[in-house]
Amino acid sequence: MAVNTLRLLSADMVQAANSGHPGLPMGAAAMAYVLWAKFLKFYPGEPSWPDRDRFILSAGHGSALLYSLLHLSGYNLPLEQLKNFRQWASRTPGHPEYGLTPGVEATTGPLGQGMANAVGMALAESFLAARYNRPEFDILNHYTYVLAGDGDMMEGISYEAASLAGHLKLGKLIVLYDSNRITIEGSTALAFTENVRNRFEAMGWHTEYVPDGNDIAVIERAIETARQEPARPSLIEVKTEIGFGAPNKQGKASAHGEPLGEQELLAAKRRLGWPEQSFYIPEEVSLLFRDIFERGKEKFLSWEQKYSSYARAFPSPAGDLNRILKGDLPLDWETIWQTFGFDIKPAATRTASGKIINHMAGHMPELMGGSADLAPSTKTILTGESDYSSENRGGRNIRFGVREHAMGGILNGLAYHGGVRPYGGTFLVFSDYMRPSIRLAALSKLKVIYVFTHDSLAVGEDGPTHQPVEHLLSLRAIPGLTVIRPADTFETALGWRWALETASGPTALILTRQDLPSLDLSLKSVIREGLPHGGYILAEGFRSLLDVTLIATGSEVHLALEARSLLEKENIAARVVSLPAVTLFQKQDSRYIKSVIPENIPTLVMEAGVTLGWRTYWDNDSHVCGVDKFGASAPGSVVMRNYDFKAENILDNVRAMLKNKTDG
Amino acid sequence: MAVNTLRLLSADMVQAANSGHPGLPMGAAAMAYVLWAKFLKFYPGEPSWPDRDRFILSAGHGSALLYSLLHLSGYNLPLEQLKNFRQWASRTPGHPEYGLTPGVEATTGPLGQGMANAVGMALAESFLAARYNRPEFDILNHYTYVLAGDGDMMEGISYEAASLAGHLKLGKLIVLYDSNRITIEGSTALAFTENVRNRFEAMGWHTEYVPDGNDIAVIERAIETARQEPARPSLIEVKTEIGFGAPNKQGKASAHGEPLGEQELLAAKRRLGWPEQSFYIPEEVSLLFRDIFERGKEKFLSWEQKYSSYARAFPSPAGDLNRILKGDLPLDWETIWQTFGFDIKPAATRTASGKIINHMAGHMPELMGGSADLAPSTKTILTGESDYSSENRGGRNIRFGVREHAMGGILNGLAYHGGVRPYGGTFLVFSDYMRPSIRLAALSKLKVIYVFTHDSLAVGEDGPTHQPVEHLLSLRAIPGLTVIRPADTFETALGWRWALETASGPTALILTRQDLPSLDLSLKSVIREGLPHGGYILAEGFRSLLDVTLIATGSEVHLALEARSLLEKENIAARVVSLPAVTLFQKQDSRYIKSVIPENIPTLVMEAGVTLGWRTYWDNDSHVCGVDKFGASAPGSVVMRNYDFKAENILDNVRAMLKNKTDG
Repeated sequence: MAVNTLRLLSADMVQAANSGHPGLPMGAAAMAYVLWAKFLKFYPGEPSWPDRDRFILSAGHGSALLYSLLHLSGYNLPLEQLKNFRQWASRTPGHPEYGLTPGVEATTGPLGQGMANAVGMALAESFLAARYNRPEFDILNHYTYVLAGDGDMMEGISYEAASLAGHLKLGKLIVLYDSNRITIEGSTALAFTENVRNRFEAMGWHTEYVPDGNDIAVIERAIETARQEPARPSLIEVKTEIGFGAPNKQGKASAHGEPLGEQELLAAKRRLGWPEQSFYIPEEVSLLFRDIFERGKEKFLSWEQKYSSYARAFPSPAGDLNRILKGDLPLDWETIWQTFGFDIKPAATRTASGKIINHMAGHMPELMGGSADLAPSTKTILTGESDYSSENRGGRNIRFGVREHAMGGILNGLAYHGGVRPYGGTFLVFSDYMRPSIRLAALSKLKVIYVFTHDSLAVGEDGPTHQPVEHLLSLRAIPGLTVIRPADTFETALGWRWALETASGPTALILTRQDLPSLDLSLKSVIREGLPHGGYILAEGFRSLLDVTLIATGSEVHLALEARSLLEKENIAARVVSLPAVTLFQKQDSRYIKSVIPENIPTLVMEAGVTLGWRTYWDNDSHVCGVDKFGASAPGSVVMRNYDFKAENILDNVRAMLKNKTDG
Repeated sequence: MAVNTLRLLSADMVQAANSGHPGLPMGAAAMAYVLWAKFLKFYPGEPSWPDRDRFILSAGHGSALLYSLLHLSGYNLPLEQLKNFRQWASRTPGHPEYGLTPGVEATTGPLGQGMANAVGMALAESFLAARYNRPEFDILNHYTYVLAGDGDMMEGISYEAASLAGHLKLGKLIVLYDSNRITIEGSTALAFTENVRNRFEAMGWHTEYVPDGNDIAVIERAIETARQEPARPSLIEVKTEIGFGAPNKQGKASAHGEPLGEQELLAAKRRLGWPEQSFYIPEEVSLLFRDIFERGKEKFLSWEQKYSSYARAFPSPAGDLNRILKGDLPLDWETIWQTFGFDIKPAATRTASGKIINHMAGHMPELMGGSADLAPSTKTILTGESDYSSENRGGRNIRFGVREHAMGGILNGLAYHGGVRPYGGTFLVFSDYMRPSIRLAALSKLKVIYVFTHDSLAVGEDGPTHQPVEHLLSLRAIPGLTVIRPADTFETALGWRWALETASGPTALILTRQDLPSLDLSLKSVIREGLPHGGYILAEGFRSLLDVTLIATGSEVHLALEARSLLEKENIAARVVSLPAVTLFQKQDSRYIKSVIPENIPTLVMEAGVTLGWRTYWDNDSHVCGVDKFGASAPGSVVMRNYDFKAENILDNVRAMLKNKTDG
């Protein structure tokens, strides 16, 4: 009866919205019910209970099922919200959105992402447990459950994440695979005939098979077995009928993504022995879920008690844990930064970043991350720390393998879980591989930090496949993602500091492969004040009457400084503006913006990326020195010069601009 | 001896460049030699021989090996080029680039892509064979070989592509898996311990195992067995030692991505019994490859003869085949377009696109494609055609499954192969999933057509996870990709026509989910002339003295037209410019640009995407009606109105602009 309540509440929601996906909720209601009623550890009165089990609906189009579960379970999601499914300003959007709806653990919908998120959550749990649990005090000890569909299984990101999960032996990760053999285009026989369970076994997973998705006892047994499996993640393939109960649509693609229709919905209710009334919840189902609520509350309260004893017995780890679960910064924050020793030796900003991560790691046990098989290049290894592995759950270096997309999804999972500040690195050009995950981090406001190195043509010999050109712009275009491209070690440190201290969403640090000189460290306070504004005056013109403002980011700041000196010899007064974070700069008030970039002075921008953004779509004026074509393979300095990143060219440009101005 | 020649030529190249990857060439030289010497059907005198076997170095960082093979085989790649490896303007860039180096079949380097390219090539071969071969005339009958590494295996795209290849039973696809157990960070034991062969078997592949990567006889037998397997693609796992021959680096990560160093290179030469001389090629090895060249030539000449007889016996298919292999358009091109019946009924541009594809498919047998499990939504099905499948190789509808990234890579493979004009569809928001493949299509100038539908907030109920915001800008930022966002059926047809007729690289068509009115078809000639320029005056102001220029793309063009009418009532003269392809518009001469968008008239842009690109980074003036945050779940028209895409708002904006102008 509870199962049919889930089915028909969901179908009613979709019908009322006249939009949505009834098929998955009706097909997968039984497994969801078994999981929530018999296994899931949660307490709706405290949705952020750190030790709750995590449940991720990777097949996010089945959101109606999740909202039905949340409502029945007693989360703050009144029936009114279910009736407003997919409507403006409701808390029941088309796909689950983290932060909007209590009890939603991850934003899902783009397929495969939830699988990777779950791997991140299971990883975080095992990491925190290894670090903070003490004998008889298993403060962190929860499962991570996923409900995934055929589409999730087909996406590359889920393969990548599953392969890593098998390698890492994440035994407390359990995936319920709603195998309904139907996708939007029709039967999975059209495109997907692999043996999924064999594939997962090849990746080191434990698998179970439930031939009848309505057989509650068998589902229960399968989950129980999976929970007992310590050293392998589990995939439970549950054969279901999409749209179960709808007499004419069950088992068909037509049940997937559109309302059943009034007639078919009524027919389904008749077939399932249900009253015609919309949004009907039988009293006994309410009582049943009330019981579940109470059981959850008991578990929570006993955990709270255990936590108090733990805090008394182990004040030091408990203090840390308290702080990192809240996401607070260390108390001695200012001091930590002051003890980082800057030097003025030329260094690649990736190298600077590596030093900063390592410095911070000593003070922030929550800092954890790795690279998609490029750690020696991205400088993301914590040198004093060990690898996270199945034998060493407390390790802080994650070896993601050549799996950028899974890395993106796993970083999101770590951030969703909490207690961890995650970072991940790869070459900037390969940010494309993980872009769907970056977008979701921005949408969900996750404080993930991306370390994107090898940030321009200056990559050199690896050639155009490895030289980013359009990536700075396309990352800056993602709402809510902050992109910081520092010009030296000091700006890199300030970028890291901004990401850790100020960011309310993801931050991408964009770093060089090649060495850069240090900025003038007598300007420390100027730079320190300027960077959080996105940009600042790094070097004034030699006289107050300016001729030109040179604007640059990252490695090109040094070209601007060089040009400024040379221009001075020609009696041309150039100001240099360092603009490491243009999206932050844009948010400043216009007085600040105009004080940095005066309106009536010509500007010349230098950035080794596409000029769009610095210019509008059809502006062909040459006030930007950029790259509007693919790169080339040759030593980095040769490529840069051949693409006109050299002082002569900047000077020519400035002279031409000033001549035009005079002529005009 | 030939194997050591490949090893040491490659190592010499890397050493001379002081940059590159000696490890793969030295480890995989034996399998490459066996394949090229004993099996590969190719003739360097005719690199575009349609029936040549295709060889894709998916592990593109091993480019030195490929260049060595090409040089020895007699392609137009002189030794001088090998000595200029990774230098400016050489034809031996860091990673193989299609179109630059004769014999390079695909641009590789970003891992996993070559696997998907190869699936596309094998698919194209089987498709063309089914359609054009005749009894005793197997004009198309070649294998597709891949050399892939551990990194390729870890990438999600290669899983997606392999799963589809297994499903499609592409028996003539053979992957040599260079299993050297080393990645950049170290041993694959760090992150990759799955059983790769078992995984491929679960996906319907035939697998072979070669325990010693230097055992030429065993490699040969494995390839021979794989060639005999008709109904399954083959994965041959060859265990190798990375950097084989280098006494101190062999089998270590240090052999992967940096020169051996002079000392170690000399030591390797000594160990392999090689003279110290750089770029040494023994006479007998030259002779051996001369023999291979002659054998290839014979095969090519006999194929040419067969083709002549075929052309005489079957003039009609041969005529078609001739044309499509050259990539020419049908002869009656103009007529084909004239017979497409436009109507003025409101229609979604995705629906218009569906009609156009279907019309064109009747005249272009080379048109082939599909969707990543969204065909009913993207309208990409050819209704009169069957599915491409293992039982029906001549089918033209490809069911890619929920595999956007593999779709991207496979479309590239179809285009690389030739004889096919490929298209592929998904929701615009999911273009992110396939972005690395789109970038490679642009870099390689492949005439792939993307059908990206559901192009704005107007997607509605599916919510922010499914509503593109930053995607128009980020696609336009890719050099060489043309993005066309049409405003109605007629512009959609012209967009398709441009993509098929004019494009010299990939084209993305950006299409609505929702119905749009037809533009005024009395303006057909204006629109027809205007679209290839990227933009044009769609509606003049009601008087010649203009007050404002309203610029819009796609669905927002109709909002601009509505605003124009309402403004006229207020005696404000507004011109409407339709700008479906801004990157084409940018390339027009400035006279044309200024004639469409007069410089001294205020402009207001309407596009349901980020405003960046229409404005510069720190321009906060409100001359753009766009979307700089994520969307929301509600019916599409509600979302659009709440995001200010409504005439009142446009009018308010125009009034404010004009007032400011008067005030200023």
